[in-house]
Amino acid sequence: MLDTQTLSESQEVLQDNFDSTVFVWSKQKGISPIAVKYAQGVYLYDYDGKRYIDFSSGLMNVNIGHGNQRITEAVVRQMQEVSYVTPYCVTKVRGELGKKMAEICPGDLNKAYFTLCGATSIEAALKMARSYTGRHKILSRYQSYHGATYGALSVGGDPRKLPDDSQQSPNFVHIDIPYRYRWNHDEASMLTDSVEQLERIISYEGPGNIAAFLLEGESGTSGCLQYPVGYLKAVREICDKYGILLIIDEVMSGFGRTGKWFGFENHGIVPDMVTMAKGITSGYLPFGCLMVTDKIAARYNDTVLATGMTYNAHPVGCAAALETLKIYEDDNLIENAAEMGRYVAEQAELMKTKHSCIGDFRTTGLLGCFEIVKNRNTKEPMAPFNAKPEEMAVMSKVGAKIKELGMYTFVRWSYVFVAPPLIVTKEQIDEGLAIISEALTIADAYVE
Amino acid sequence: MLDTQTLSESQEVLQDNFDSTVFVWSKQKGISPIAVKYAQGVYLYDYDGKRYIDFSSGLMNVNIGHGNQRITEAVVRQMQEVSYVTPYCVTKVRGELGKKMAEICPGDLNKAYFTLCGATSIEAALKMARSYTGRHKILSRYQSYHGATYGALSVGGDPRKLPDDSQQSPNFVHIDIPYRYRWNHDEASMLTDSVEQLERIISYEGPGNIAAFLLEGESGTSGCLQYPVGYLKAVREICDKYGILLIIDEVMSGFGRTGKWFGFENHGIVPDMVTMAKGITSGYLPFGCLMVTDKIAARYNDTVLATGMTYNAHPVGCAAALETLKIYEDDNLIENAAEMGRYVAEQAELMKTKHSCIGDFRTTGLLGCFEIVKNRNTKEPMAPFNAKPEEMAVMSKVGAKIKELGMYTFVRWSYVFVAPPLIVTKEQIDEGLAIISEALTIADAYVE
Ligand SMILES: Cc1ncc(COP(=O)(O)O)c(C=O)c1O
Ligand SMILES: Cc1ncc(COP(=O)(O)O)c(C=O)c1O
Repeated sequence: MLDTQTLSESQEVLQDNFDSTVFVWSKQKGISPIAVKYAQGVYLYDYDGKRYIDFSSGLMNVNIGHGNQRITEAVVRQMQEVSYVTPYCVTKVRGELGKKMAEICPGDLNKAYFTLCGATSIEAALKMARSYTGRHKILSRYQSYHGATYGALSVGGDPRKLPDDSQQSPNFVHIDIPYRYRWNHDEASMLTDSVEQLERIISYEGPGNIAAFLLEGESGTSGCLQYPVGYLKAVREICDKYGILLIIDEVMSGFGRTGKWFGFENHGIVPDMVTMAKGITSGYLPFGCLMVTDKIAARYNDTVLATGMTYNAHPVGCAAALETLKIYEDDNLIENAAEMGRYVAEQAELMKTKHSCIGDFRTTGLLGCFEIVKNRNTKEPMAPFNAKPEEMAVMSKVGAKIKELGMYTFVRWSYVFVAPPLIVTKEQIDEGLAIISEALTIADAYVE
Repeated sequence: MLDTQTLSESQEVLQDNFDSTVFVWSKQKGISPIAVKYAQGVYLYDYDGKRYIDFSSGLMNVNIGHGNQRITEAVVRQMQEVSYVTPYCVTKVRGELGKKMAEICPGDLNKAYFTLCGATSIEAALKMARSYTGRHKILSRYQSYHGATYGALSVGGDPRKLPDDSQQSPNFVHIDIPYRYRWNHDEASMLTDSVEQLERIISYEGPGNIAAFLLEGESGTSGCLQYPVGYLKAVREICDKYGILLIIDEVMSGFGRTGKWFGFENHGIVPDMVTMAKGITSGYLPFGCLMVTDKIAARYNDTVLATGMTYNAHPVGCAAALETLKIYEDDNLIENAAEMGRYVAEQAELMKTKHSCIGDFRTTGLLGCFEIVKNRNTKEPMAPFNAKPEEMAVMSKVGAKIKELGMYTFVRWSYVFVAPPLIVTKEQIDEGLAIISEALTIADAYVE
């Protein structure tokens, strides 16, 4: 407890938060969160006037950047009419957003089920895939994250679920997809090996038992582990062969993040269901969506769709989403993400020549990360998978330096994420990469 | 598909919604949702200018009534500063709301974990109860609802989970608590029988295996099935005896709905954890909260709290909640709920003399419902538990009449809910009950 007599405004805000709230995925002691007073564009400002460049767009969700008052205006307009109706009523904005979603989604992905976040979209997708197919198992990937509710956590392949291991929901099967940087053969063999393994696992599990295969459009917090070239196309064919639904999770990779509306569009496929959140409102309000094909929706014409939530299709969330989608278009943000992604990739290539700790950099549009290693030959990561705090010594120093130098970004295990808002300019990328570069000199000193 | 040339605005809104969105807990065909244009106080208005008195406060969440622009203003103020920060940052409003929550919660319930809705609060509570106690089973009640994600659905005892029965999350044990109207003995024996049964079930399941007992503060959509007098006090003692946490779900019964801040306050107990949503923002924005005691929170000082979500402690949600809590206080809404609850009970008593179809009316504050029966002696309900559409013939007619007469409320099986916003006046209660009374003449004709 700090002496309240002498607290700065920043310390007061922190003290209230420590006194009365708990912190996610953390030990409650020894953390030092930034107290954000104000945010604009790609910058956060704390109560002491310090500025941070936001190089992870919050949690890869604030795609349009901070402080865009068009969203505020759309929210006010909606709240002056009606803020809440039950999902048994409808609003104009719900219909308009549904139409817009059908427009931006390819193929027959024309029906929207509006949720609150990533996890609630995933939970709805799992239930619908099972009820639609009458099958019980869901395939998914190790090293993927889909949310923290029991269903979403269990289908995920991220170690965040391990503390709850014994209480997992049933009938999830995880497969391991190799990633390029750590694969010892050529690209073509990576594809054939992965596809053959998938075929084997499906036959071991029984194709007729598998409702769906759930994959991220592009891998995110697991370290941007890109798919072997051609993998998703092969998956689409295999799913079709066995009547398995293909669910693509675009919660992180959607809404321009990868230089296309959706990550799967980089792979030339159309899924049967798409889960969304984050970029759909750029975080300004909580919102999510599950898009399904007309064919899937039609199954529920005469059968009850057995799911729902109080805040399904929340009118104010719908209004925020609709305005966000217009901003992507009006401000050409998706094109900018593609272009800036290329620029980041070029600059990161140059950084590799300066920093021996950089093992790999990979990005799709603006969903990218550095992978920091102890040794470029052995590729031993600077911190192991699911590193314990004591194994994070070097990477924690890198993270602390990044923060000290005025950047907010996501540092996880050996990964330093580069995923700024899609409005980012070349100058701002230079500014951010310069900070990361300076911080990485710390890691360089530990290269063996 | 209607002819777009001749669509009214209302029909256009409906058509867009049918074309592009899916509907919860429903067959997609044959539904006729109200298209809400505008809402103010206790009234909804559709695009044809028809007015509906909202006698279920949306889904028992719009406690402060519709269209209160104080919330809009609070939302705008927050959005002009910062709309989103990750849960690894903090905001002033998060700390202020945490303090306020600690103030309105009794005992040591001082630490807030902010979520998005009821289900996400429940999911967090389940995970935390298990990790805190190191035990795996959760006890809960048949005829209770806690949300639609896999964990929340499985712990619930509502038939909405039955379509997903084979895929339930593990280690939930449900108990049956008798309710007064259908109990054949006196109140005292109902209490002793219930308590003795609970003790037996705990010993059968192994007290050392049970992490928590989860109960609604007051029963809601299952039919306002009030606890035997003294039951929650006895439960509190039993939980203490065995080191079982008592989690009270105040998602529906919280925030003045029952004439107190929380339903459990009618029973003279203090839980270890409280889940909240709905009334916390009155539905204006999605938001929820899990309150835990200092002792529980302290366990995570040096141990990672293994849960989280992108939209934990959303700044705009926090701002809406903080303003909503002030409105409860400034406008004395909780006192009004208690007073209007007594008035509703009196008037309902009079209605019983007019309508032979009314088997029972029960309410706690403004969380109440009529139970409609075929026969007062046999107490046979007008529609059975978990009635299929074809078993709802009479009650569907009642529901349609209620809607036709200009009321929106929740009609489920044999229950007609009376849960208007807490701002409701005696005149508005009279207006609403007159509508229900007229509709019940339909049911009277089927009394045997
Ligand atoms: C791919 C993916 N899916 C789902 C989620 C879960 O989203 P939420 O935190 O909104 O539940 C995340 C969150 O990071 C994600 O990255
Ligand atoms: C007691 C209770 N708990 C939890 C929930 C689930 O809340 P949500 O729909 O916001 O997930 C409800 C919803 O009606 C409820 O009544």
